[in-house]
Amino acid sequence: MKKNLIFAQSGGPTSVINASCYGIISEAKKHGIKIFAAKYGVEGILKDNIIDVTNMSDDELNTLRYSPSAAFGSCRYKLKDEDFDRICEIFDKYQIGYFLYIGGNDSMDTAHRFSQYVINKGKDISVIGIPKTIDNDLTNTHFCPGYGSAAKFIATSVREMALDADVYDKEAVTIVEVMGRDSGFLAAASALARDEVVDAPHLIYLPEVPFDEESFVSEVKRVFDKKSRAFIVTSEGIKDKFGNYAYLREAKVDVFGNTQMGGVGRYLEHLVKQNITKRVKVIEFSILQRCAAHTASLVDNQVAVKVGKAGVEKILNGVSDVMISIEKTQNGFEPGTVPLSKVANYTKPFPKEWIDMENRWVTKDAIEYMLPLIQGNVDIPYENGLPKYIRFIK
Amino acid sequence: MKKNLIFAQSGGPTSVINASCYGIISEAKKHGIKIFAAKYGVEGILKDNIIDVTNMSDDELNTLRYSPSAAFGSCRYKLKDEDFDRICEIFDKYQIGYFLYIGGNDSMDTAHRFSQYVINKGKDISVIGIPKTIDNDLTNTHFCPGYGSAAKFIATSVREMALDADVYDKEAVTIVEVMGRDSGFLAAASALARDEVVDAPHLIYLPEVPFDEESFVSEVKRVFDKKSRAFIVTSEGIKDKFGNYAYLREAKVDVFGNTQMGGVGRYLEHLVKQNITKRVKVIEFSILQRCAAHTASLVDNQVAVKVGKAGVEKILNGVSDVMISIEKTQNGFEPGTVPLSKVANYTKPFPKEWIDMENRWVTKDAIEYMLPLIQGNVDIPYENGLPKYIRFIK
Repeated sequence: MKKNLIFAQSGGPTSVINASCYGIISEAKKHGIKIFAAKYGVEGILKDNIIDVTNMSDDELNTLRYSPSAAFGSCRYKLKDEDFDRICEIFDKYQIGYFLYIGGNDSMDTAHRFSQYVINKGKDISVIGIPKTIDNDLTNTHFCPGYGSAAKFIATSVREMALDADVYDKEAVTIVEVMGRDSGFLAAASALARDEVVDAPHLIYLPEVPFDEESFVSEVKRVFDKKSRAFIVTSEGIKDKFGNYAYLREAKVDVFGNTQMGGVGRYLEHLVKQNITKRVKVIEFSILQRCAAHTASLVDNQVAVKVGKAGVEKILNGVSDVMISIEKTQNGFEPGTVPLSKVANYTKPFPKEWIDMENRWVTKDAIEYMLPLIQGNVDIPYENGLPKYIRFIK
Repeated sequence: MKKNLIFAQSGGPTSVINASCYGIISEAKKHGIKIFAAKYGVEGILKDNIIDVTNMSDDELNTLRYSPSAAFGSCRYKLKDEDFDRICEIFDKYQIGYFLYIGGNDSMDTAHRFSQYVINKGKDISVIGIPKTIDNDLTNTHFCPGYGSAAKFIATSVREMALDADVYDKEAVTIVEVMGRDSGFLAAASALARDEVVDAPHLIYLPEVPFDEESFVSEVKRVFDKKSRAFIVTSEGIKDKFGNYAYLREAKVDVFGNTQMGGVGRYLEHLVKQNITKRVKVIEFSILQRCAAHTASLVDNQVAVKVGKAGVEKILNGVSDVMISIEKTQNGFEPGTVPLSKVANYTKPFPKEWIDMENRWVTKDAIEYMLPLIQGNVDIPYENGLPKYIRFIK
């Protein structure tokens, strides 16, 4: 009897996580097996909240490929050892022998632990991880699907906002806060906005470099004195030299007496207002940077499809306990494999050698790394002037 | 001797204000006159900060058409009567007889007053206003170029964020703050996001309807109790029944003792946290909604070109003291004219009869009005994976 396949999505969504589902479903269809999707990640497996997607139409599949968010739902639940029996029980019920888990390093840890469990128990279940994260912080892969599209959105929007910020003949400081708790890849992507027309951003603050208030003020002053303006991009994760989130010092108390934690953008705004100018604007991309699928990177979308397809090919060939990695070749990006144990729980920082400390900028090597990841525009279905999306949760 | 033409941009930029400049320049070129652009609006005229754009290349013109922000700079300066002599002096220097001013209702007032001045002084100068504003609050025109693209960005992003907001099987309230001090057209555009897949937004708050805390809490509760979530869009300009901005009550004091004014999004967040759930996310589009040219509306861009061209045709035919208006015809949108006195300083609110008070929603008529304005995608030049833009200020 043929074994069936299940996949699940985990963690924060990206603009192309559904492209990996498209890759999985369209590849698995060729092999004539039943394909299941867990709703809301592994929580859906535990709760037997599972749907059969074997007969998804080509139309639905194409819309799925270009839809943002996780079309089957996601979770932030980290599987406990005592959950593994329950997972196996559900897998027995649906005759599942293949499990693909799409996620970041936490999910790769979950996948690895479950994989070890089924080996120990002698269960006939294979497990493969499919990489996904806008943070680009998974190790042993050239990049992570999701990052290319987030980088493209950030670079595009920073370029557009930089033009807007210069529109009046007046002094102005603009601060843009992007995601990235521990890794500066997202903030660094804003460097791509600069060209012969747009000189912004002027300063980029990464979590890999300890943040110092005095240096910050003098760096902004240097730019501001020359240009009467400054355009700053900061990672939400900048920390002081003790490793504390820099903005934690900026606790705020509202009129109701509640302590409010300001974001890092508001913290830097305060420093600029106190020391340089009152004309400061703060913009937070918030979830836009991970869901603006209308401007996703074509390369990113294509690679997300590839890792999904490769996951199915490998798992049906008996490979298990690995994550599909991405290797850069002369012809583009090709999938490879890396043991889950090598990616589980590790975080890849933005490389130190790519940081131009003096100018709060990134090196040419960094630009050459990021540029191929944002190439091409997706041709998404439109209806009534808006992108047409799909999902399989209410 | 032939008279020359000058144009200037004013007020907050839009994604298509440069498309009107493209229209002006390409039309004026056909008539063999010299074309000047003032840098930073009328301030550029007063300061003799003017450039000759007669020989702009087709390549530059095409890039200009799709660039966000005001490529020649803008200003918020309202001309005083004592400035008019100086303007005429500069116009004499450049032999200018035609003045096109691109802006909103403040700028139309400036244009009208200057027009009256030159008539009184017997000067051979014609003045025409070209409409522009994302707020869509100019009277006597079917819509304002800039609004269509802002509406398309808002509807697209709200649809994408609504999918993202539902990704976990957990309760969640999302609050999106959009621009619009006095007019709810921008907030209303979020209604376009709803389709058979996305049920958000659930509630839309417009400045035309007095805001009441108790009603707000009970309305959000009603949605939340049913769905375990709520997606709310609010105009930045909501006011209480006395006409005060609702969020003014929410003054905040930071640890340095400074009073900080929270935005309306933060104010509503507070109400939700106090009364419904702590799981609230606030997103402010900020300037993104007026500069996201990569997702501009094709119809909006085309109409912006048309009003620029029509301005040149009319002014060369001796028409003065009017604004180019937009009329809806069976074939689309065609330019007309309206006396400047009829638009100067007036504000068009979102029509009361288009508001569904009970459901905090908009009527079918409102949807039918907005939908044609967001149709079609612009084919902008890309380079290295990013939109290629242009500007003529540093």
